[in-house]
Order: sequence, then C-alpha cells, then structure tokens
Amino acid sequence: MIETPYLLFLGDAPDMLAAKVAQGIKDWRPEYAVGQFRLEGCKADMGLPDMTLAEAKAAGVKTVVIGVANRGGVISQTWKKVLIQALEEGFDLASGLHNLLRDEEDLAAVAKATGRTLHDVRIPSVKYPIANGEKRTGKRCLAVGTDCSVGKMYTALCMEKEMRERGMKASFRATGQTGILITGEGVPLDAVIADFMAGSIEYLTPDNDADHWDLIEGQGSLFHVSYSGVTLALIHGGQPDALIICHEPTRSHMRGLPGYQLPAITTVRDTALALARVANPACVAVGVSVNTQHMSDDEAKVYLAKVESETGLPATDPFRYGAAKLVDALEAV
Amino acid sequence: MIETPYLLFLGDAPDMLAAKVAQGIKDWRPEYAVGQFRLEGCKADMGLPDMTLAEAKAAGVKTVVIGVANRGGVISQTWKKVLIQALEEGFDLASGLHNLLRDEEDLAAVAKATGRTLHDVRIPSVKYPIANGEKRTGKRCLAVGTDCSVGKMYTALCMEKEMRERGMKASFRATGQTGILITGEGVPLDAVIADFMAGSIEYLTPDNDADHWDLIEGQGSLFHVSYSGVTLALIHGGQPDALIICHEPTRSHMRGLPGYQLPAITTVRDTALALARVANPACVAVGVSVNTQHMSDDEAKVYLAKVESETGLPATDPFRYGAAKLVDALEAV
Repeated sequence: MIETPYLLFLGDAPDMLAAKVAQGIKDWRPEYAVGQFRLEGCKADMGLPDMTLAEAKAAGVKTVVIGVANRGGVISQTWKKVLIQALEEGFDLASGLHNLLRDEEDLAAVAKATGRTLHDVRIPSVKYPIANGEKRTGKRCLAVGTDCSVGKMYTALCMEKEMRERGMKASFRATGQTGILITGEGVPLDAVIADFMAGSIEYLTPDNDADHWDLIEGQGSLFHVSYSGVTLALIHGGQPDALIICHEPTRSHMRGLPGYQLPAITTVRDTALALARVANPACVAVGVSVNTQHMSDDEAKVYLAKVESETGLPATDPFRYGAAKLVDALEAV
Repeated sequence: MIETPYLLFLGDAPDMLAAKVAQGIKDWRPEYAVGQFRLEGCKADMGLPDMTLAEAKAAGVKTVVIGVANRGGVISQTWKKVLIQALEEGFDLASGLHNLLRDEEDLAAVAKATGRTLHDVRIPSVKYPIANGEKRTGKRCLAVGTDCSVGKMYTALCMEKEMRERGMKASFRATGQTGILITGEGVPLDAVIADFMAGSIEYLTPDNDADHWDLIEGQGSLFHVSYSGVTLALIHGGQPDALIICHEPTRSHMRGLPGYQLPAITTVRDTALALARVANPACVAVGVSVNTQHMSDDEAKVYLAKVESETGLPATDPFRYGAAKLVDALEAV
C-alpha cells in the first residue's frame, strides 16, 4: 500500500478540473493531505499549505502524489525535475496517469538508486475475467453522467457517507485513479483491456449481503464519444439496481469535444435505463445529482426544483446539500 | 508481414464457430489456405486437405496459423506439442489469441533457438490517440449485431467485394484478429486499452475521398453484456454514415450467456441508431444482413421477407445471396 501522509503535486494544472485527483484526496481523506506543491503557472489550488520538499519532509510526508491529470495521461517533462528531486530526498511517488512512472527511464533509475517506490495505481493488478452476466446477490447503484467529470465519484462518495451514518451497509467501489488513491483499492477501468472491462466490474462488485449496496463510481458518459464504451461496460458489468443521473448544468459543450452539446438529463436517464435493463430488468433511475459548484445558492435551488419537475425524480447537489434525498430514494428501492 | 501460404491449425475446436479465424481465411483468401491440421476430437472442418507438418512443408507452407479461438483466448496445453514441433520443422506461427505466443516460455524458447517468428496479431502495434470526435471526410458503414459472431465481418467483406466489382471505392477495415490475419492490417480492438478504443477506430478510418466507403468490421453487440462497451466504442469512433444490422435467427440465447435472450432486430436498429447519431446526426440504418447458414433456402427466403416487412429495410444473406441489395442501399445514401 501507499504510505501516508501525502504531498499533493499539482504541477502546472491549467484549471481546477485538471487537479481533480488532488481535490478528491483532499475532500475525502483530508488527514492524508498535508500540503500541496505547485509549479509556475499552476491554476489549481487546494487551499492547502504550499510546501517545498524540505517542508514536506519536516511535516512527515511519505509520498508525493501526482494530483493532476492531463489529456492522454502524459508525464510532463516540466514535472520531472521536481519528481526526481523528491525521490532523491526520500519520498515515494504515486500516480494514476496512463503513462507510468516506471516507464520513465530517469525516474525508474533514480527510484532504483535511492530505493524508493513508484506506485502506478493506473495499472490493473488483477487478471480480470470476461463478464459472465450472471445475477449477483446484494444491491448496486451506479452513477451515470451526462458528461465526463460532472461529479459521479463525489456523488457515490457522498452517498456512501450518508448511508454509513444511517447504519446501512454500503461500499464505495472505485473505478478510477482518484478513487483508488482515496480508498486504496478498485479497478482502474480506463486502463483495462477492452474485452475484460465488464468482467472487471463484475469482479469489483461481487456477491454480497442482500441488504448491502455497492456505490459504483461512474466513468465517462454514454454521450461522450471518446469514452462511451467504458460507460456501457460499467452499466452491463455493474448490473445496477439503481441509477443516479449526474449533471453539471453550466457546460457549454461536452468536455474536450467543442462540437458536441450535452444531452438532456431525461435523455441520459432513458438511454442508460434501457441499456441497464439488458443486464438487470429491475433497474430503476432513482435520482439526479447536480454539480452546482458554479451556481449561487439561489440559482442552484431554482435549478434543482426545475430538474425535479422535469424528471419526476428527487434532485440535489449531494456535496453541497447532503445526499439524504438520494439515499432516501435508494432505501425505497 | 506474415509469410504465406498457411497451414490452418484447428486444434480441438468444439464446433465450427470456434474455428471462425480459419474459416475467414479460407473464405476470403483461399489462395493462402493450403491445408488444415486437426487434433483428436476436433469438430471443425474447413474442407481443406488434412496435412501433417511434413506434408505441409512439402506443399510450401510457411506459417502455421492458429485458426481456432477459445473463451478467454488461452493457448491450450494440448496444442503445445504440435506448435513446438512446427517451430522445430521450420514454420513460423501466427495467432490472434489474447494470450500471446511470445508469453509462452516453451514456444518463445524454441522460436528463439530455431530462429522462427511468433506473430501475435492480437497486440496493438500502434499507440492510439484518445478520440477527438471531429468529423472526417469520406463515408463509413458499420456492421452492428444482435449478438456476437453473427456474421458482421463476413457482411463487411461481402460488401467490399461487391462494391469493388461495381468500381466503387471501398476498404474493409478489420477490427478483429481474423480480419487482421485476412487483410494484413487493422486494429485488434478487443485488446486495446479502454480509454483508447474509440480513438483506435478514428485512427483506422481516417479522412478519405468523399466517395470512398470504409466498411468497418463490427464487434460484439450493444446487447451482449460481456462486450457491449467495445461495440459502443466502434459506433462512436467509427462515426458511421450507415449501419447494417446483422442477425443470426436460430440462436436460443446470446452467445456464451445462457440467461440472455437475443434482442429484436428493430430494437438493435433503434438503439444503435440513436447512439450513432451522437457522433453523426446523419447516420441511417440501410439494411439487414441475416446469417441463414442454419436454414434451408426456403426458410431463409421466407425469413428475409419477414425481416423486410418488419423493418422496412432491405434484408439479405450477403454470403449466400450476394451483397447487391445492401450495396444498392448504400449507394442511395
């Protein structure tokens, strides 16, 4: 396992969304996040103390976690100097990027020379099976989005927290690098070989107690042409009993795809539900999770009321207003 | 490239479907397929001369192609003896299985000692991009199936042949190991890392002449829970202008999934079309390709008429009756 606590490396993140790995760790395991390290031009800020490597060492940091992702998952040359210095000063490195720390010759050489560990949580550590589609015991809830990066992981984590506070049996199931860095286990779905995607999700969410809920982290969107296949593998491998539709209402286009408009929440609901029922005919859509971070409180409340009226489903921003509404709906399934 | 001609190794194939790699080579590049090699209990037969390795050598064979696939893509221990002997007698080996020839220590050692080549066409040879969803020039037709192994590759190959005979610009685009072994190039989609699936199909079907058609080989089915994610990546990465719905009417359940019934052709058409229009709003369904190999001529013709009536689309078995109807429909797009 990765040694804690962490220094969160934000690099030259162009915006806050690019640093969602760091944000997730800071929000859900704040006890691990003692500081941040930013390069010139970094547009992300976790509100943590900016630390030099020496200051991080003095604060007890064990691992420098790359808390920033860029398109394609490349390890930027501008980051290398700091990462090499970190290894030399006795820190381990942890990363969820597509391109692996261990494949960078300079990092691998310095890690070997200094005896430090390179944690690439992006790599599957398991040989996943091909999905068999057999019905599993226990209940599963999947977050599906109108777009990428709309708050699917946060929704699942908020619901897990609320459910545990109510004494319900609930497990957040991570399917991305941030979730894996937060919980220490999960399936790095976007790095899984195509044929084994659905099988990896069956593996992640096995038979369980009849009253246990898996809260499965969603990925991508059925309407995001770059990643839609990953989303459908989650829907069919996850065999969900309940769907939560996740949306971010201020986007002008699909993330990374200027020519593509966001679908309506009802379109996503109906499309996802029809496909989910192939694997689980009893699947229902139970609620809508709206990421209102770019709206005022008044705007958010008006918008949520409008969504409830249009969809006939309870709608909330679970990070801002709590997940009670969504968990109430889940309890009614 | 793989040296020809081939000896098609059928192993202990439990049925003809398991030997679809060999069947594809035999049907589409008969000049490469000079003989077959079968183990005891083999239920597949290509109608080619059964040859010993010595006979194959005398017939000029250069490469033994593993023409059989089993669930999970494992290289069976019962095959090893023959494969090792083949290397020792001077043949190369070619395989499209998930598990690689080069990863089998005994095969790798003998290949090294004898100077022979192990061709694993399953492995992507290209670092594919993430899909950008941008509109490309030229036209694309994608075969989508109600199930796996219903004849999507044959449909595309039949259409390519008919189109070339008419003087149309047409390219079969292989997305599976059989197609790659047949044409010598393509994307081994089921072995591509999840995040790059759609991008690999964009790479496979680049900008082209306005009157050029790519005939993209389909994979899986939106309704096959093991592989549906691969299918959706094809639909969104392929950006098809036209869909051909492929069906095999005698299946009692989805291939490999006893608990799952086949969807109706119209359901597949409507579901695939709605999803395809995310990437290409002009996409239309142009025809139905029915695999009638298990039906009499009379049964097939009655069934095709029924499909035409139910779908309002031209329907044929392009392998049995020619692809003219489907190409006529494509020319009308």
